[in-house]
Amino acid sequence: MLDMFFAPRAIAVVGAAREPGKLGYGVLSNLLQYGYKGQVYPINPKADEILGLKAYPTVLDVPGPIDLAVIVVPNKAVPDVMRQCGEKGVKGVVIITAGFKEAGLEGIKLERQVVAIAKEYGIRIVGPNCLGIIDTVQPMNVSFAAGQPPQGGIAFMSQSGALCTAILDWALANNIGFSYFVSLGNKADVDEVDLLEAWDGNPHARVMIAYVEGLRDGRRFMEVARRVTRRTPVIAVKSGNTEAGSRAVSSHTGSLAGSNRAYDAAFRQAGVLRAGSIQDLFDYAIAFAYQPLLRGNRIAVVTNAGGPAIMATDALESAGLKLAPLTKETIEALQGRLPPAANTYNPIDVLGDALADRYAFAIQKALEDPNVDGLLVILTPQVMTRIEETAREVGRLSRLYDKPVVGCFMGEEKVSAGIRILTEEGVPNYPFPERAAGAFKAMMDYRGWLDRPIPEVRQFTVNREAVQRTFTRVREEGRLTLGDAEARAVAEAYGLRVPKSRLAATAEEAVRYAEEIGYPVVMKIASPDILHKSDIGGIKVGVMGASDVRDAFDLLVYRATRYMPDAQIWGVQIQEMVTGAKETIIGMSRDPQFGPMIMFGLGGIYVEVLKDVTFRIAPVSEVEAREMINEIRSYHLLQGVRGERASDIDAIVDTIMRISQLVTDFPEIVELDVNPLLVREAGAGAVAVDMRLVLSS
Amino acid sequence: MLDMFFAPRAIAVVGAAREPGKLGYGVLSNLLQYGYKGQVYPINPKADEILGLKAYPTVLDVPGPIDLAVIVVPNKAVPDVMRQCGEKGVKGVVIITAGFKEAGLEGIKLERQVVAIAKEYGIRIVGPNCLGIIDTVQPMNVSFAAGQPPQGGIAFMSQSGALCTAILDWALANNIGFSYFVSLGNKADVDEVDLLEAWDGNPHARVMIAYVEGLRDGRRFMEVARRVTRRTPVIAVKSGNTEAGSRAVSSHTGSLAGSNRAYDAAFRQAGVLRAGSIQDLFDYAIAFAYQPLLRGNRIAVVTNAGGPAIMATDALESAGLKLAPLTKETIEALQGRLPPAANTYNPIDVLGDALADRYAFAIQKALEDPNVDGLLVILTPQVMTRIEETAREVGRLSRLYDKPVVGCFMGEEKVSAGIRILTEEGVPNYPFPERAAGAFKAMMDYRGWLDRPIPEVRQFTVNREAVQRTFTRVREEGRLTLGDAEARAVAEAYGLRVPKSRLAATAEEAVRYAEEIGYPVVMKIASPDILHKSDIGGIKVGVMGASDVRDAFDLLVYRATRYMPDAQIWGVQIQEMVTGAKETIIGMSRDPQFGPMIMFGLGGIYVEVLKDVTFRIAPVSEVEAREMINEIRSYHLLQGVRGERASDIDAIVDTIMRISQLVTDFPEIVELDVNPLLVREAGAGAVAVDMRLVLSS
Repeated sequence: MLDMFFAPRAIAVVGAAREPGKLGYGVLSNLLQYGYKGQVYPINPKADEILGLKAYPTVLDVPGPIDLAVIVVPNKAVPDVMRQCGEKGVKGVVIITAGFKEAGLEGIKLERQVVAIAKEYGIRIVGPNCLGIIDTVQPMNVSFAAGQPPQGGIAFMSQSGALCTAILDWALANNIGFSYFVSLGNKADVDEVDLLEAWDGNPHARVMIAYVEGLRDGRRFMEVARRVTRRTPVIAVKSGNTEAGSRAVSSHTGSLAGSNRAYDAAFRQAGVLRAGSIQDLFDYAIAFAYQPLLRGNRIAVVTNAGGPAIMATDALESAGLKLAPLTKETIEALQGRLPPAANTYNPIDVLGDALADRYAFAIQKALEDPNVDGLLVILTPQVMTRIEETAREVGRLSRLYDKPVVGCFMGEEKVSAGIRILTEEGVPNYPFPERAAGAFKAMMDYRGWLDRPIPEVRQFTVNREAVQRTFTRVREEGRLTLGDAEARAVAEAYGLRVPKSRLAATAEEAVRYAEEIGYPVVMKIASPDILHKSDIGGIKVGVMGASDVRDAFDLLVYRATRYMPDAQIWGVQIQEMVTGAKETIIGMSRDPQFGPMIMFGLGGIYVEVLKDVTFRIAPVSEVEAREMINEIRSYHLLQGVRGERASDIDAIVDTIMRISQLVTDFPEIVELDVNPLLVREAGAGAVAVDMRLVLSS
Repeated sequence: MLDMFFAPRAIAVVGAAREPGKLGYGVLSNLLQYGYKGQVYPINPKADEILGLKAYPTVLDVPGPIDLAVIVVPNKAVPDVMRQCGEKGVKGVVIITAGFKEAGLEGIKLERQVVAIAKEYGIRIVGPNCLGIIDTVQPMNVSFAAGQPPQGGIAFMSQSGALCTAILDWALANNIGFSYFVSLGNKADVDEVDLLEAWDGNPHARVMIAYVEGLRDGRRFMEVARRVTRRTPVIAVKSGNTEAGSRAVSSHTGSLAGSNRAYDAAFRQAGVLRAGSIQDLFDYAIAFAYQPLLRGNRIAVVTNAGGPAIMATDALESAGLKLAPLTKETIEALQGRLPPAANTYNPIDVLGDALADRYAFAIQKALEDPNVDGLLVILTPQVMTRIEETAREVGRLSRLYDKPVVGCFMGEEKVSAGIRILTEEGVPNYPFPERAAGAFKAMMDYRGWLDRPIPEVRQFTVNREAVQRTFTRVREEGRLTLGDAEARAVAEAYGLRVPKSRLAATAEEAVRYAEEIGYPVVMKIASPDILHKSDIGGIKVGVMGASDVRDAFDLLVYRATRYMPDAQIWGVQIQEMVTGAKETIIGMSRDPQFGPMIMFGLGGIYVEVLKDVTFRIAPVSEVEAREMINEIRSYHLLQGVRGERASDIDAIVDTIMRISQLVTDFPEIVELDVNPLLVREAGAGAVAVDMRLVLSS
């Protein structure tokens, strides 16, 4: 896919220039210098020949076919060039020229015009406002970058062109290999999703990495990434995490949600590893690009220094990895050969005077050990240390076992030759043990993703029509917020358990219903105009006996009218009181990028004060629902503390999935809070006591 | 101080060797090569001359006085050399030789022997098992390190010699300047505290940094560091954070405490900045070494690329810093000179085609702005970018204003010349914006420490004798755990409020006391043998009326005897029931390094499940007590949520300080939990309902 960019037979450089220093010169000379094998046509009406090639005034003057045009003419001239490309049958363009969407209103109009022409002729666009594309596989360099990275397994895409220049400079210095290096610019057409699809299954893209500022279509990204990540690791940095102030939302879920939470959830559900910084992005990328996948979480460390080994241990364990417990055989073999002062348990300390052979012996024994899933080799440049020879041994041995090996050759000047050898041998090196541990954690997380069953979204048998009817009626009455009884009907239609409840119009009716339901009861003012009932004292719990019910009825009605004299009051809801249960909350808010996002947390202060909540993009599978419950800090409370019995986790999972189905079936639901969902002990179910539901206008 | 190491007039190298590659050669040649100005005496019984200097068989044969001896002879020979040094009047020795404490039992004995000889003659020791000392100020290099770093403001000490070799190699490659570089080895004598004291006030030590695996005397470290950090930033990495399994402790506090928590608390209370890794350690160190202190938290960013500026903003804001709001004058000045597409708000984007002059203009305006406390200059190597010229401008301008300026020149190969210039100009550079933000956070934290009032520990008037009498009596009875009434007496002696309470021996007595105290009451089984009363159902709360009191009395006694048939039972405690209060816990456990450590948290699940607690080493000042309360996650609950009134924070502060005084006055208290401390609303005080107290055996 996207063959016009990754397998073009002929390329035109529109705006090719003769003067070094101009972009149009840089692009053409890169294309020639880095070995592109197809036809190249410089396009420039004022030149006959550029860099030894015949130049043409326009693409239409070129005799042969053209698959790809790289455009570096001034922004105002781009629409004409696009039209010519269309007439010529060009299939793809890379628009390097800036001055489009990023440059204000005029630029936005210009970009729209360019996109319209592209649609008309069926041309795909990379850019505008980008550095171009470097493809070391064909090879093909249609960029104005200063240099080309070596070939390698990393496929990189970036929304920021400036960042590309910095990454490239770093890659050149460190000999980091890339297969594809794409600057996406304004993403007028081709975006991250297109590249994920295009690279899927391509053996040159061993790992795909992205710098993302924002996605255009979050759900399509998830759908594609979820598939791609099953065979290729995808790592992304998402910048712009600081929330631009809280939005005007009335639900708890809405106030706790936000774009950063949504990206976190989406990346996680799609198996995309989220890196916290560009440094992390490449720390992880080189591990995946060079080394086999990690199969378990038990890491061995071989070191010539104690201090860094302690730091490695700290970092590995706090990242959730384990120091591999070496087998008796390994320990004995090490004891038989290493000096007596050496540590033959993990971390294996070969001591400061270790030459390459001692390192090699320990490394081999560690890699042979069935209890070891991955290996970290730490080296400090001491007097006796044979840095380059050791690096070669690490490289040689790393290829003999199907386990990831990473280096931590510490220092810089003296170790640089050793690090160069490691890189050539395909062993990633990290300057500090903590960063090596970070790479192992990324590998472990990816392993977790691969081992995880493919999430299946369960479809419950529900009464969708009943909900539709309720919504229609609510809208007909000119409302967007559902009343208690309506919300209850919706909940029941989707299989949620709700407390027994009846709406009493008079105090006497209230007494009758309370006696039907059984004491104690909960009483709530019933009014479509009052959202947060508890804030105005509109709820009484534990009401016992007829006389108290009468008193409560009058009190609630009085308070409601005092709070809002014009409120429409339907009466008082008489409700079964659920006792001996844990208060939880399940909510939904809509993210502009990813759509419905489900929240779960323990109710009350856990949500409001501790903000101990978790999110997933709907639809939520059973596996994901279970993960949500497991990952809140207060999860232990649901397992039962101080001799309590565990809560009914299955019932929560069920409720999350049903609500997920509800908000997926009805995109018109913009906010939803089930608060509280009272969860009884295991086996006894959960009851949706109150549900708030707001429809879109 | 420690002049024998930092100002010796004559140095002997004991074990000096003629063969390159031997340590004794390396040390002598470093000493000669790196410009030491005093007398140098090689000591070697088998040589007449080494490296052009006359050699002597022993130090005793040297004609002149010797201040410092560097010892590189085999470990077994060290005691003899020490004795000779003693006879000669040598004041300090650097023992590079390994094979001491780190090498097992024999080595431990040998090290003790060496220390004893040193004590006898009054010799100070650095090492053994170390790399030596590099002092670029005298200058003097008594180490076998390969090379010497440039002179600079960083004073570094490390417990790991191997780490020193790596750091040195890195420093040489990056031109990072050090004043002192000390490998402490086994710390048989000189340790971190001695160096902090020795360097205190030394203008060459602009920042002191340490790699620490463990401290010998935590309290002395705190005392000295607390003073030193008032004028010099001290940064430390403490490795070995993973706890070696939970110890056998019976108190909540004990089970939550641990060495890592203790180091965290101690460093913080002493103003020592704790770095999470060696990378962070040096990221922070170069900022302090090169740049003036940060005065506020408002940072300006000047950049030629949007993407990295977004990352910088994310990182600064999540580190607690603020993007400086530029003044109207600054914005107008920028608008008057930068291109229209430039962003003239903060981050100031000078655009990808910015030359050095445009950068300089923006930098100058930002530094002139009174709303700006510090500046980050981001540069990506784009086509037009003048990297070196821009670096020179950053350097020049950074010296004109008393505000920290840091660089983030991204990339590696192309930017390296620019980074070299920045370093020469005293501007630290970070390869990624997140790391620059980390350095600003360290500077902000240090500013916070300097601005903080010096903590004063309040001394309350207490009845120390009463407590002493109680303890004596408990011990006389062969117990280590206090009973309820005893704990109550101790609490009252130290001014804690306790609930009204009486011990009833019979059910009838219980009724009489309950009526005196007033209903409802709390009833607790009184037995020195039952620690966690609630676990066995040994507490009844809210008991109302005579008949219920009688029932509860019998029930509690029955349960206690069922649980432990031999338990000594004193009766049942009848206690005032404190209502409308928040449950908190204050505890103490003793850390082997730092002594009494006070814990605070909200009671119940906050402590047990969420582990939302905080620690300080006692004695705790008022400022520190207040910080403890502020920093727990559930702090908001004490401020009052959902219309509740705030809790009595002052009463918690008072209680923390009184308990701090109690455990400081009585080192024999090994564990203490006040659980719960019930805190009423502001002004109404706090009541220590239950106190557990265990004495040392």
